[in-house]
Amino acid sequence: MKHYLTTDDIDSVPKIIEEAIALKKDPYQAEQLGKRKTLGMLFFNSSLRTRLSTQKAAMQLGMQVMVMNFSGEAWSLEFEDGSVMNGSTSEHIREAAAVISQYCDIIAVRAFPTLTDKDKDEEEYVLKSFQKYASVPIVNMESATAHPLQALTDAITITELKTRKKPKVVLSWAPHPKALPHAVANSFTSMMQKMDVEFVITHPVGYELNPEVTGDTPIVYDQDEALKDADFVYVKNWSSYKDYGKVLHSDPAWRISQDKMALTNNGKFMHCLPVRRNVIVDDAVLDSPQSVVIQQANNRTFAAQVVLKQILESL
Amino acid sequence: MKHYLTTDDIDSVPKIIEEAIALKKDPYQAEQLGKRKTLGMLFFNSSLRTRLSTQKAAMQLGMQVMVMNFSGEAWSLEFEDGSVMNGSTSEHIREAAAVISQYCDIIAVRAFPTLTDKDKDEEEYVLKSFQKYASVPIVNMESATAHPLQALTDAITITELKTRKKPKVVLSWAPHPKALPHAVANSFTSMMQKMDVEFVITHPVGYELNPEVTGDTPIVYDQDEALKDADFVYVKNWSSYKDYGKVLHSDPAWRISQDKMALTNNGKFMHCLPVRRNVIVDDAVLDSPQSVVIQQANNRTFAAQVVLKQILESL
Amino acid sequence: MKHYLTTDDIDSVPKIIEEAIALKKDPYQAEQLGKRKTLGMLFFNSSLRTRLSTQKAAMQLGMQVMVMNFSGEAWSLEFEDGSVMNGSTSEHIREAAAVISQYCDIIAVRAFPTLTDKDKDEEEYVLKSFQKYASVPIVNMESATAHPLQALTDAITITELKTRKKPKVVLSWAPHPKALPHAVANSFTSMMQKMDVEFVITHPVGYELNPEVTGDTPIVYDQDEALKDADFVYVKNWSSYKDYGKVLHSDPAWRISQDKMALTNNGKFMHCLPVRRNVIVDDAVLDSPQSVVIQQANNRTFAAQVVLKQILESL
Repeated sequence: MKHYLTTDDIDSVPKIIEEAIALKKDPYQAEQLGKRKTLGMLFFNSSLRTRLSTQKAAMQLGMQVMVMNFSGEAWSLEFEDGSVMNGSTSEHIREAAAVISQYCDIIAVRAFPTLTDKDKDEEEYVLKSFQKYASVPIVNMESATAHPLQALTDAITITELKTRKKPKVVLSWAPHPKALPHAVANSFTSMMQKMDVEFVITHPVGYELNPEVTGDTPIVYDQDEALKDADFVYVKNWSSYKDYGKVLHSDPAWRISQDKMALTNNGKFMHCLPVRRNVIVDDAVLDSPQSVVIQQANNRTFAAQVVLKQILESL
Repeated sequence: MKHYLTTDDIDSVPKIIEEAIALKKDPYQAEQLGKRKTLGMLFFNSSLRTRLSTQKAAMQLGMQVMVMNFSGEAWSLEFEDGSVMNGSTSEHIREAAAVISQYCDIIAVRAFPTLTDKDKDEEEYVLKSFQKYASVPIVNMESATAHPLQALTDAITITELKTRKKPKVVLSWAPHPKALPHAVANSFTSMMQKMDVEFVITHPVGYELNPEVTGDTPIVYDQDEALKDADFVYVKNWSSYKDYGKVLHSDPAWRISQDKMALTNNGKFMHCLPVRRNVIVDDAVLDSPQSVVIQQANNRTFAAQVVLKQILESL
Repeated sequence: MKHYLTTDDIDSVPKIIEEAIALKKDPYQAEQLGKRKTLGMLFFNSSLRTRLSTQKAAMQLGMQVMVMNFSGEAWSLEFEDGSVMNGSTSEHIREAAAVISQYCDIIAVRAFPTLTDKDKDEEEYVLKSFQKYASVPIVNMESATAHPLQALTDAITITELKTRKKPKVVLSWAPHPKALPHAVANSFTSMMQKMDVEFVITHPVGYELNPEVTGDTPIVYDQDEALKDADFVYVKNWSSYKDYGKVLHSDPAWRISQDKMALTNNGKFMHCLPVRRNVIVDDAVLDSPQSVVIQQANNRTFAAQVVLKQILESL
């Protein structure tokens, strides 16, 4: 693997899942691989799971890790080419990325979208600038439009827990008070399209994801209808894509309850976390055996580890 | 040791002190014990000694360390059960603690009291929530009501420096401009009650600590009287417990001076640090050979190390 | 080496450069030297290159690294002797430095100048206080008046890239919207004075550096004149020294363009970074083969590594 920017960077989904599950059984099997290699983790936004699981994954591969919060610890970055930098930014991504490449063997970046400037977000200006100007592999720790480490985690989790060959997987929108990115929903959708599952998306009218992402995936506007016979219910809020970054409404009828879960085929409840209790999902669901969010979060380590391993192997 | 939440989690005070002193003589004796084990250090508040000494202790045991500042780096946590999370908190402690447990073998937490909500502080809602929802051992790096790593440090220091079998130890309140927690005073008191010392507390009227903590320990309202013949003078400010979190006054007559130290049995001056010079204590005392605050701070490493060691041994 | 506070702490400039270049060829040659040794990196200000390269250097020597941001993570420090600490500072440097010395084998500190209080800056109160009260070696990661790790980097870079025995090196002021410190310019000047180069400084009238630093170094007020036949053009903004910390003007005529570079002997463009594009220097220069800023930044690792190595050897 050269970079891990989107799920499209995966050679073979079944093979990478198999390899991740093997790492989970024996996490230190490749402890020599990362010796004298350094992972630089750069955060433009908050992180709990990604921060800790990626660091853990790197350490299990024997890597050294350097973590830097851009806001507060480093200089504010300029991404525009040709700009006259007499304002608030003091370092251009061209230098920053090239320089960090000399201190790190792999650079992992988290940079959320603006949710106000659709074009800027869609062109993934932070992540793509790192890719363009860095001389080492880049790992996406959630960018404006994609969260492929999460999607790989989810693929591992579904593979581990599925009870029939071709499970039904439903991605359901759920209400949330704030405008949230599309990254998790996008990458989950792309990943499900690569897997042997029956995949359906459900959300209120107006919350359609980028049609280039959803493609042929069926969209069902009736949540109850969509949940019928589901083996996995993947829940996530996102803001409007068409009316970009807007919260059109946060209809509580879309919150996942036990009644809704009763419509499924004893379906597993999944969420990338953090999750707002009793807004996205009822306590009764999240605290039930049907919820697999904790096991899911555990797989973050092995998703990150298999990605770092494949990149290290290609260095 | 399963957790280290308060000094009550210590099996045998003399034995753990002995073991800490042995680690101090040979800090890398158990370097293999922590191999492939990860300590997660979670900070809700500032820290210098605890941050660095605990990290050092873990590294001396061969552990990997991941440090996370909740404020600024992660998501704001919700601790209320059953709450509808449509406000400012975005992750519930139930998920956070359970998830972090999967990335770390031991979790250390620092979370100061509100000093405004006595009930919330007394129930130790942050620390106890971590204990409740985490699946790995929890180490208290100073909570609302206790600072047991500091108390163990103090016990080690007194054991190293005592010149008579049963030394007289005085815990004295001293003035401070801001409202400070009771954690250090509480844990020091609990620890002294477990040791073979003559222990006395002195403070102005109104500054009584939680009577459940002080129990039978004599309280002397005349500081000079209390200091007489003391071998160790442990100085600390705290706010009122009865009039919860209030600074009743900050009477400069209680500041520790050379005159006051002259009342002691060539007593050692102790303080957990940070200490406000010429407010809590005169420069002349702090810079005199009677002050042992620096040696005391050095023992923070070995207090943390012996606690982590005993926990690792019980995993 | 005992401390590394200024370039004057270098025994032999040619020897340390040679040793750094040898480390660059074989970065892990001294991996055992730092085993069980801890570097504490303390930041009072932002950092990207220094943060990552110094950490990387320490890891390549086998050291453990603890990074702490004073602002936000620790207590605000008091540096005045004899002060009554009833204000905003809660820990005195005397305790902080002495305590950290017990957790770290080497302490590295970054603390920028006030640029408002010349006397305070000139006495290097932060760095010197650490040196005074710490019991372990101190490394300057940029202080009020000096940035000797950068200067060593620059010396390595010039040595690697020079094409004649005694190259002409020009330090040129360039415009910048904000008031910047003199540290880089000072240390670069001191370093060039120790090297076998023809060294010239150029800047507008009023931007004279501290005459104690510049000494006999020729100052040319005509930038074009100064650049003639230069092998290395080291560009940096600084605020006025005489009218302390003031931006007298930021004359765009001093920006480095291709026309200006054409005056040189196919000169190399150097800058410590971060650099403001099209303010300090034109894109056309920075993106040309004449610019060596990225290679220069790479040498930060080996400058830090040779300094840490020499200090470790003297422990």
